[in-house]
Amino acid sequence: MKLNSSKIVYHQKFPNGKEIAATAVLVYDLRLERVLPDFQKFRKGFAFSYPVKAGEELKSLSNFPKHVEALLQKTDGFAGITFVSLGGGSVGDFVGFIASVYKRGARLIHIPTTWLAALDSSHGGKTGLNVGSRKNQIGTFYPASEVHLVQDILERQPQKLTSDAMGELVKIAMIQGGALWNDLGNGATLWEVLPKAILAKLKVVKRDPYETQGQRRILNLGHTLGHVLEIEMGLSHGAAVAQGIFFALEWGKNRGSLSPKNYDACISRMALLGLKKLSGQDLRRVPSYQAAVNLLRADKKGAGAEKLHFVFVQRPGKVFQEKVLISDVLLEAKRQGFVV
Amino acid sequence: MKLNSSKIVYHQKFPNGKEIAATAVLVYDLRLERVLPDFQKFRKGFAFSYPVKAGEELKSLSNFPKHVEALLQKTDGFAGITFVSLGGGSVGDFVGFIASVYKRGARLIHIPTTWLAALDSSHGGKTGLNVGSRKNQIGTFYPASEVHLVQDILERQPQKLTSDAMGELVKIAMIQGGALWNDLGNGATLWEVLPKAILAKLKVVKRDPYETQGQRRILNLGHTLGHVLEIEMGLSHGAAVAQGIFFALEWGKNRGSLSPKNYDACISRMALLGLKKLSGQDLRRVPSYQAAVNLLRADKKGAGAEKLHFVFVQRPGKVFQEKVLISDVLLEAKRQGFVV
Repeated sequence: MKLNSSKIVYHQKFPNGKEIAATAVLVYDLRLERVLPDFQKFRKGFAFSYPVKAGEELKSLSNFPKHVEALLQKTDGFAGITFVSLGGGSVGDFVGFIASVYKRGARLIHIPTTWLAALDSSHGGKTGLNVGSRKNQIGTFYPASEVHLVQDILERQPQKLTSDAMGELVKIAMIQGGALWNDLGNGATLWEVLPKAILAKLKVVKRDPYETQGQRRILNLGHTLGHVLEIEMGLSHGAAVAQGIFFALEWGKNRGSLSPKNYDACISRMALLGLKKLSGQDLRRVPSYQAAVNLLRADKKGAGAEKLHFVFVQRPGKVFQEKVLISDVLLEAKRQGFVV
Repeated sequence: MKLNSSKIVYHQKFPNGKEIAATAVLVYDLRLERVLPDFQKFRKGFAFSYPVKAGEELKSLSNFPKHVEALLQKTDGFAGITFVSLGGGSVGDFVGFIASVYKRGARLIHIPTTWLAALDSSHGGKTGLNVGSRKNQIGTFYPASEVHLVQDILERQPQKLTSDAMGELVKIAMIQGGALWNDLGNGATLWEVLPKAILAKLKVVKRDPYETQGQRRILNLGHTLGHVLEIEMGLSHGAAVAQGIFFALEWGKNRGSLSPKNYDACISRMALLGLKKLSGQDLRRVPSYQAAVNLLRADKKGAGAEKLHFVFVQRPGKVFQEKVLISDVLLEAKRQGFVV
């Protein structure tokens, strides 16, 4: 399937399934049955539906054959089935992967129900399955034909999930700068900044859709140390990315590539969004040097021996990547208390 | 990964693994250990190797997680691994699929060891896994970066496998016509016609790489009834396709879309290649009407209710597709004795 960009559709209320796709299977987070009003009515708008338990286990490679068999059985005899995902990041990654390989590629539509998925993971085409504890070892680049964003669904999210989204949001705003960065300073709501945040991500993706040219790597701002903290401390992805950004900002200031003035601007914007650096009690749980080395080594992609591409901030609206020694990342992480 | 066309490289003798790819895993049909001289020397040219038992079971979805885990373990810590397949169609389909989803797409090189794979399946990018007895339900379009064709390997094939290739060869020659068609009449060897046959297939693929435009469907000449006979009678793919072509030719003549003169030209070229229509004893094993209906229904792709796209021959070098009723296919199959 070609890598086209998705059509983005905004709704205030739940759209009608029948209008979304003719012969479709709705793969949905079963928790939504209880959470969303009128869910059953929505579900009945689809030819088929397939409830799943959201979370990393859903993305486990070992469960993949079972899901494929069940989905094939359910949709048997229908040519040209469309897959519609309704859920957060794990549901989108899972359904995206299945659609990308189902009879060599089926039509795919995402309806993200978390801000994190709405802002970030449902755009750009990355799909993935986990192999054991290693995330996204199997996957494809397969953008949805359409992404539907529904205000009424997204605004029902519990507060914790909303703050999880802030890490990725501040990341893309720091990359983009301009109006998006300013909006975050002016008390705009998540729903209001959503279109700008999506466009900012897609602008980066478009330059390097298959992550082969290097440009897409700037979306990893905050992710290098973030991944280590996510795995070792059990932080949510968004919270871990936020800490990774704090780390990148302070490292930049310490090495002189980020001016104190721009550092302060970034930090105060993050504070305004409710993000704060780990401190006190929390720092007692940080990973060991060796655990961090192992994860960073596994994560690096072709930057050469013992090096990785690290994304630094120069100012809001300007970030850049640099090859750095893994040992230098860890030296700095130790200095900042993120590693013992 | 983008759908680029593969680089085709011809060798007289086994190439050196080290020259083919820097950090590669050779996934090979373990039967080749016994069959190919100097195999161990060749194998040692690769950083990693992974023997597999060739055949449809290799392509089974249920074994896929196990293979992925083993391959990840083997190649762990290496960024930018290349997958090299050495084997026939099943090995190529399997390795192609794994490469297409391994860390969202790894470099892929095919070294086909059967004429069928060398002529057909290693070109055009189709990969696939089977779900139960249903073939290629899961797959991708993922052309190899390079396909290496080695005369010394291919010419070691047992005679039976060589005649299996004739079905696909005569198919592509009938589609292409011209020099390829004439070569087949002039006693050219398989090695001699290989470049022309590959180019002829890639010419069709290029017009419709993802099989979304319809043009690629002409490569299904002989495959509609062929698939039924392959599954129900246990014929090899090549032998079944040859019978499917005989069926299409005779149907074309009966309905008047293929002149008797062109029919005779096609039939005599097939006879020259050692292909003959099933008759006598063999016809006692043909499938039942109901079994054939079920398979044709499952096979059809969006041609409308109870219809399928059937590929007819007008003359060597000109084939065309037409939507026909499944019941009409079967009526004709019954008349020709392919179905009871």
